[in-house]
Amino acid sequence: MPTPYEAPLAMMRLALDQARTGDTDGALETDAVLEAAARFARDVLSPLNSAGDATSSQLTAARGVVTPEGFGEAYRRFCADGWTALSVPQELGGQGLSVLLGAAVTEIWGGANLAFAMCPESAAGAIEALRLHAPAAIRERYIPPLVSGRWAAAMDLTEPQSGSDLSTLRTMARPDGQSWLLTGRKIFISWGDHDLAENIVHLVLARTPGAPPGLKGISLFVVPKRLPGERGLAPNDIQALSLEHKMGIRASPTCVMALGEGGGARGWLVGPQHGGMACLFTMMNQMRLGVGLHSTGVAERAWQLARAYAQERLQGRDSAGAQRPIVEHADVRRMLLTMKTLTHAARCLAYTAAAALDIQAERRAALLTPLVKAWCSDVAVEVASLGVQVHGGMGYMDDSEISQVYRDARIGPIFEGTNFIQAQDLLGRKVIRDDGAALEQLLGEMEHAAHRLRDHRGSRSAVELATLAASLLSEVSLLRRAARRLIHSHGAQPDLASAVAYPFLQWLAVVAGGWQWALTALQALEHEPADDSAGALVLGARFYATHILPRARAHAAAVEGGADVVASARPAQL
Amino acid sequence: MPTPYEAPLAMMRLALDQARTGDTDGALETDAVLEAAARFARDVLSPLNSAGDATSSQLTAARGVVTPEGFGEAYRRFCADGWTALSVPQELGGQGLSVLLGAAVTEIWGGANLAFAMCPESAAGAIEALRLHAPAAIRERYIPPLVSGRWAAAMDLTEPQSGSDLSTLRTMARPDGQSWLLTGRKIFISWGDHDLAENIVHLVLARTPGAPPGLKGISLFVVPKRLPGERGLAPNDIQALSLEHKMGIRASPTCVMALGEGGGARGWLVGPQHGGMACLFTMMNQMRLGVGLHSTGVAERAWQLARAYAQERLQGRDSAGAQRPIVEHADVRRMLLTMKTLTHAARCLAYTAAAALDIQAERRAALLTPLVKAWCSDVAVEVASLGVQVHGGMGYMDDSEISQVYRDARIGPIFEGTNFIQAQDLLGRKVIRDDGAALEQLLGEMEHAAHRLRDHRGSRSAVELATLAASLLSEVSLLRRAARRLIHSHGAQPDLASAVAYPFLQWLAVVAGGWQWALTALQALEHEPADDSAGALVLGARFYATHILPRARAHAAAVEGGADVVASARPAQL
Repeated sequence: MPTPYEAPLAMMRLALDQARTGDTDGALETDAVLEAAARFARDVLSPLNSAGDATSSQLTAARGVVTPEGFGEAYRRFCADGWTALSVPQELGGQGLSVLLGAAVTEIWGGANLAFAMCPESAAGAIEALRLHAPAAIRERYIPPLVSGRWAAAMDLTEPQSGSDLSTLRTMARPDGQSWLLTGRKIFISWGDHDLAENIVHLVLARTPGAPPGLKGISLFVVPKRLPGERGLAPNDIQALSLEHKMGIRASPTCVMALGEGGGARGWLVGPQHGGMACLFTMMNQMRLGVGLHSTGVAERAWQLARAYAQERLQGRDSAGAQRPIVEHADVRRMLLTMKTLTHAARCLAYTAAAALDIQAERRAALLTPLVKAWCSDVAVEVASLGVQVHGGMGYMDDSEISQVYRDARIGPIFEGTNFIQAQDLLGRKVIRDDGAALEQLLGEMEHAAHRLRDHRGSRSAVELATLAASLLSEVSLLRRAARRLIHSHGAQPDLASAVAYPFLQWLAVVAGGWQWALTALQALEHEPADDSAGALVLGARFYATHILPRARAHAAAVEGGADVVASARPAQL
Repeated sequence: MPTPYEAPLAMMRLALDQARTGDTDGALETDAVLEAAARFARDVLSPLNSAGDATSSQLTAARGVVTPEGFGEAYRRFCADGWTALSVPQELGGQGLSVLLGAAVTEIWGGANLAFAMCPESAAGAIEALRLHAPAAIRERYIPPLVSGRWAAAMDLTEPQSGSDLSTLRTMARPDGQSWLLTGRKIFISWGDHDLAENIVHLVLARTPGAPPGLKGISLFVVPKRLPGERGLAPNDIQALSLEHKMGIRASPTCVMALGEGGGARGWLVGPQHGGMACLFTMMNQMRLGVGLHSTGVAERAWQLARAYAQERLQGRDSAGAQRPIVEHADVRRMLLTMKTLTHAARCLAYTAAAALDIQAERRAALLTPLVKAWCSDVAVEVASLGVQVHGGMGYMDDSEISQVYRDARIGPIFEGTNFIQAQDLLGRKVIRDDGAALEQLLGEMEHAAHRLRDHRGSRSAVELATLAASLLSEVSLLRRAARRLIHSHGAQPDLASAVAYPFLQWLAVVAGGWQWALTALQALEHEPADDSAGALVLGARFYATHILPRARAHAAAVEGGADVVASARPAQL
């Protein structure tokens, strides 16, 4: 009795309404896209999820990396239905839908089958990088097959000595006529080789001869698995040496890639020589938002599995002696509400970041991207763990999908820049270096929502939500003060700022989640739908106010009083 | 370069000193036992941990359950060295050491190899149940081989329909002369079958003919895998039908047990007919404390692995351009300190519960047991997750031991009564039904320690610790008030109490952890050792005060204002 993933269309529509910044997509179009994505996720991707985990992708001598049964056919249909092209501009052969609507669909893929979803997400990042940075000839050759999905993409960044800190990269590219020959070894390359597409477009970071040391000497290259030419595709000198055995996302092949074992993998520059890091960030921002969206889907999936189990599993009796489903037990309700309210807050925040991209609100997007990547992935880990807990002993068994969700979720805080890298980016670059401008705009919007909620009249629910409005106002003003202090004093002391970057991110995120629940509650109060859904939304907002938002106090204490103790700790004292 | 588990003897001695309630064990004896256990853990158990995870125990047609290579020899040496008999009274052939010292050793086993450690822990629970409840003939027959380790034990409680709620048990026992014949099926039986010992003593919950329904009709039976008789051991009608495939603790065989497929498994009553639940609680309390201790060991292990990795892994550069180990990065320090301070607090609290048993302080032990089981296991999950995070991408790979630790840790909050069962036990039975007496005594001790810390004079450290003392005093008084309110108002409304039981447990635990850090800081201030260790301890206490103890505010908010929203939620609103 497997429970297939069902896209939570009602909650997604609420989140879309809260985040929307323009009229890009029509309402009918939005519905059609969401419903089609929901069907594809339920009927095609979700049923492959458990088997993909059990089988994993395998590296074979004869056929390279072989994906689990069914993945090839699913990918073929995914491309045929146009999902690879959703938010790609129409002039590039895409469907030109908004980033926001694309974000909702990305969440759906992550919820149905995270391992699968990572593959098209890489292609989307590659299309964006090529579109903005590659010369015309490269764009014309590589973008169309990526848009159609005929070719896939992979990001080749990490090397054994070079993970969070890319300045120590060693992969070399030497000029050879109009192109380059690359040699080196890359690790942790997601979907670095596989049998879904006829070609794989690797975007590779490497150094050129005489390049300055460190990040300033890094260039970005496009290195196809197979070289396109007049007589079709010819092998290039890049191959998967081995696959990692991982805790989760096992259907997604994580490769060690060797470039140039036979002399050199042929590649072409993307963007200026030594300008690789700037081009990389185009991809990285896309990928980071993708992690946030996928993680939201994973959290949603955990909640669906837990709720279904809780409604079904009988344990304990009511006062009349009848057996009760565990959903009637108070603590199961508490866990399910924690899962649901965190997931919805994460979703709304991720969509808000996506919507900022639709109107080129660059500072807003830059501020929200690390917040979304880190918080949504942390939320997914927490929610998945609660999902296991609701299942009791069953949740610990390999044959229960929630145990896979728990393992899958754990990658989110690690890849595409660890969550601490996100926190440092948020506090260092997006708050301190920005002198708090984008943050202040965000806090102002939070205050505005809190005022609207506080001033709403006319129903019992409004009274019940007074706590949310009041806490939100209080947290916003404390956050504002703390940010001011960090900008003034810690800006000059990067170690102190670094020591509180993570609690600062958590504080801002949990308050932003409260802001989003305030907006959701306002939607419920203002539209007052006749069914039970408004009651559930008000309940969710109240729960967030009493059970989740107070975490702000703990994060704030670490920000306010905890920098020195961390910064002064010597390694021997740890 | 595997890092073997090293028992943290210095921190354990501090925790033992804080918890000790009497002079049971001599100092020399304590040292000798701890050092021998540390050696055994490092040299014998820890090296088997990863391989045991990779291999798992296997069910074979010819030989029943076969444990991973090396487990048999390790168990033989474990018994030969007398570890099965450590805290067993001398009159039963044990070594008669204190429960407290036994607790420290139990932590060590859990840290070195959790899957292995669960096996002798079951035997310890069985010895205790038999010693207190079984008739003399049973005691004489079963206890000596359990004490020597020649026989192992298992607890057969859960059935498919009957997990947290044992009232629906169906396994039947019908009288047959002086003994009973049992038929039924049990699931999730840890170490239910294996090849380590020549016999396995199952303690089985079952109903007798005509027994009253529900918990009042349950009896406890001893059912050996092999029947001891004059001509040696003869097969009994109980066998493992299958093994579960689990997320973690894979070397530990989790069995589906069939009793009476051939007519009836022969067993003998332990305790009075229909008195099974009382006998069960003897074992359960032992097992629950064991989970807390094992979980503490798991958390310690995660911290050791993370610290070793952080000292070794180079990433990023200092201002002079030299590569730095990641332990020098502020957020890695923050994570390591979170791991270390949570682990030490959990350890101290678990030892405090064990020490209460040494002086038969029964209400104290009853209050602390659920707190320890739940909080230590939650801490292990959190600390293991941080351990993965410190490892970055490496932490997600199967060949890094931290990924196993993360999977192993997740069982703690589930088995031996889910953590919500513990929370309900704590608030319902141990606080409300006790009218807060044992709690008040505990809170009084916390206040006493906070006063001592506040009034300590004479060093800069004392000033730095003022926040800890003040927060502790404030939290104790808020907890006292909240408990009073829960006793008075919610005692009559079990649904409301139930709705806040878990946040109440978390609140009390995190404050109790602060109490233990206050005691540790006092030890450091008062003894002022010449080396760096006092500085590290004061740093740990300060970190706990700024980064961990403030979580109390979030838990308190849920207790104070969150009952109604949980209790009033209808299933359709979740």
